[in-house]
Amino acid sequence: MSTAVSPLAPTSFPTLPAIAGVTLSTAAAGIRYKGRTDVLLATFAEGTSVAGVFTRSRCPSAAVDWCRERVSGGRIRALVVNSGNANAFTGKKGRAATGLTAEITAQAVGCPEAEIFLASTGVIGEPLDATRFSGVMDALVASGVGEGWDAAARAIMTTDTFPKLATRTAEIGGVTVTINGIAKGAGMIAPDMATMLSFVATDAAIAPAALQAILSAAVDRSFNCVTIDGDTSTSDTLLAFATGAAGNPPVTEAGGPALADFAAAFEELLVELAQLVARDGEGARKFITVEVGGAESDLSARRIALSIANSPLVKTAAAGEDANWGRVVMAVGKAGEPADRDRLTIRFGDIRVAFEGERDPDYDEAETSAYMKNQEITIGVELGLGAGTARVWTCDLTEGYIAINADYRS
Amino acid sequence: MSTAVSPLAPTSFPTLPAIAGVTLSTAAAGIRYKGRTDVLLATFAEGTSVAGVFTRSRCPSAAVDWCRERVSGGRIRALVVNSGNANAFTGKKGRAATGLTAEITAQAVGCPEAEIFLASTGVIGEPLDATRFSGVMDALVASGVGEGWDAAARAIMTTDTFPKLATRTAEIGGVTVTINGIAKGAGMIAPDMATMLSFVATDAAIAPAALQAILSAAVDRSFNCVTIDGDTSTSDTLLAFATGAAGNPPVTEAGGPALADFAAAFEELLVELAQLVARDGEGARKFITVEVGGAESDLSARRIALSIANSPLVKTAAAGEDANWGRVVMAVGKAGEPADRDRLTIRFGDIRVAFEGERDPDYDEAETSAYMKNQEITIGVELGLGAGTARVWTCDLTEGYIAINADYRS
Repeated sequence: MSTAVSPLAPTSFPTLPAIAGVTLSTAAAGIRYKGRTDVLLATFAEGTSVAGVFTRSRCPSAAVDWCRERVSGGRIRALVVNSGNANAFTGKKGRAATGLTAEITAQAVGCPEAEIFLASTGVIGEPLDATRFSGVMDALVASGVGEGWDAAARAIMTTDTFPKLATRTAEIGGVTVTINGIAKGAGMIAPDMATMLSFVATDAAIAPAALQAILSAAVDRSFNCVTIDGDTSTSDTLLAFATGAAGNPPVTEAGGPALADFAAAFEELLVELAQLVARDGEGARKFITVEVGGAESDLSARRIALSIANSPLVKTAAAGEDANWGRVVMAVGKAGEPADRDRLTIRFGDIRVAFEGERDPDYDEAETSAYMKNQEITIGVELGLGAGTARVWTCDLTEGYIAINADYRS
Repeated sequence: MSTAVSPLAPTSFPTLPAIAGVTLSTAAAGIRYKGRTDVLLATFAEGTSVAGVFTRSRCPSAAVDWCRERVSGGRIRALVVNSGNANAFTGKKGRAATGLTAEITAQAVGCPEAEIFLASTGVIGEPLDATRFSGVMDALVASGVGEGWDAAARAIMTTDTFPKLATRTAEIGGVTVTINGIAKGAGMIAPDMATMLSFVATDAAIAPAALQAILSAAVDRSFNCVTIDGDTSTSDTLLAFATGAAGNPPVTEAGGPALADFAAAFEELLVELAQLVARDGEGARKFITVEVGGAESDLSARRIALSIANSPLVKTAAAGEDANWGRVVMAVGKAGEPADRDRLTIRFGDIRVAFEGERDPDYDEAETSAYMKNQEITIGVELGLGAGTARVWTCDLTEGYIAINADYRS
């Protein structure tokens, strides 16, 4: 498996400031990898709000079950994340491992188990030996710092080729607050690694229900708009934390003007992280934006956009730098959403290649082929039916994806 | 693009007998290919019943529109199929091309245009020059023979690596009838080729409505259970013809005992053709059967089976001969159908690899890895929820698929 950094990686990584009320520390517990960190502990000031969004898989990991049962409590004191083992499809042993991890952590941090959250990424089906955490937990608690975001982003990587970090500021009631986020995920990752994890912390004072509302809305326009291969993880976990240390007037309602600036910055940050995941797609050489307009609804537009973004034929055409708009027609047609062939317009970048159900009369193969050589490509579809729009991000499908996922033998 | 025959091709091809009331002829009209046949004309005795099933794409080809509007008439005299151009996304020009093809054919055969059926496979978005048919139509009508099934199967190929033919006999009211079928399709095929076509003819006397009922039921358990890449064509067309020349007592009802043997043979034939399509999947090296049992319903079982069969990660694992059952768990989980992680059993062939939501205690990596080296693999999933079952066929996902679909430049 290649360890080369994705050609779509950003050329520089932001340095994330500390978030008051959050400490971070990492350790090498030897869960699967040798010679690298594989456990992240984040601790949070008392009263920190938590919100979460989880995989829709019907076979979720034990850690997902654990978090889902506790997120309605709205409070968090510590988060433990490990890479190397997903603790998924591990049955009763998996549930026991989450319980033991929480017990070890609650003792070391000094808080109720109900305020411990967990996430695991790595191999499916292998029992997770939670006793490994006891060996490193006291050191993790003792070494927590505010500035550990880069190390945190690296500790949760599996076969990601670069760490994924983003930061924003926003105003709430005249007070500047900070939002930091990290993510991991590069498609479903060999061997059996199957997880997108993302953690976003802010020093803003926001009640759990308001934080959940902002998170749920933003995830629909960010992580739910990114796809590598259409395969859904058993372990996808996105958690948001608000410590309240910034001292803004506490906000309990998400819809009002008080959180407008914050919600916009929060969504921007999630979009940046989601795009970074697509940029680290297994074998990716091209970053593809699919924009759909004129659909009967936003939901219909998103389904059509995802049908295009998940189509192996559209993605291989992009890999081959082939302006193959016939495959885009195919993907629109198979989405099962309202579409009228004879009103369809398709663009590659600014170049209109198909119009009113036919090849554009001004179609220029040379111009379009030149566009397809770009590292970033936009596929635009206009349905001409309504006002629904969507935008999703993906990457091309290359021999690299096959090599990473097929040529591995454990 | 490789022209090597798929390693999964059958070692011998059946010789199909003549079907009384059907003549076949082929010609090289130069639609796209040089030096090979690309038009098939089939003519049928007066009164021949026709039934059809078509793509669910919302952007169907002009030929699909043509057939769909006429199939309720129930009668056919001639079928014209061309390869090299799909006449899809060709707007008004596409409709004009179907009209002109039908007009040319109706004149040459001497029948109403309403009893002409059409199918096209090949490039999307290129206008089809129907005048090319006028140059060859009289010769096609003059040269029709009963034994031309192999030539017919070859004329409709695009990048298929082998022709697909099957034959069966059945008894209706003490009379032996014959069923012949041909198919083409190898995934979505470069450049832009996007079609599964299949044509099945019998000399049985069966009314159109009964033939349609048998066809619709059989397609659900054959062609609707095969997937190469999950990409749905704009042109999928399956037509069935019954000439009545065998002299059996004519049957007008599908459900009764009169057609039981025929319906079983008809479904068997469609299953054989559908499996041949999967065996010619682009880049395929392994033929995969996915069997799902214990689902809440047959429909639920099929959705889960297709989720597994369409998963790039399951298919690349098969290509890598990797007994990666964690990816099967993932694909069950993402199907969105009822599934209880802790009741799940997964088998590769006869080897139980996972049981009650955990890796099987007797799991033997060496034994399972040896099984994965077979050219034909069965993935079995038992949900433990109900009596729903499904069986689907697919192939692995290899670098060959990427090479065929990405490395092409027109």
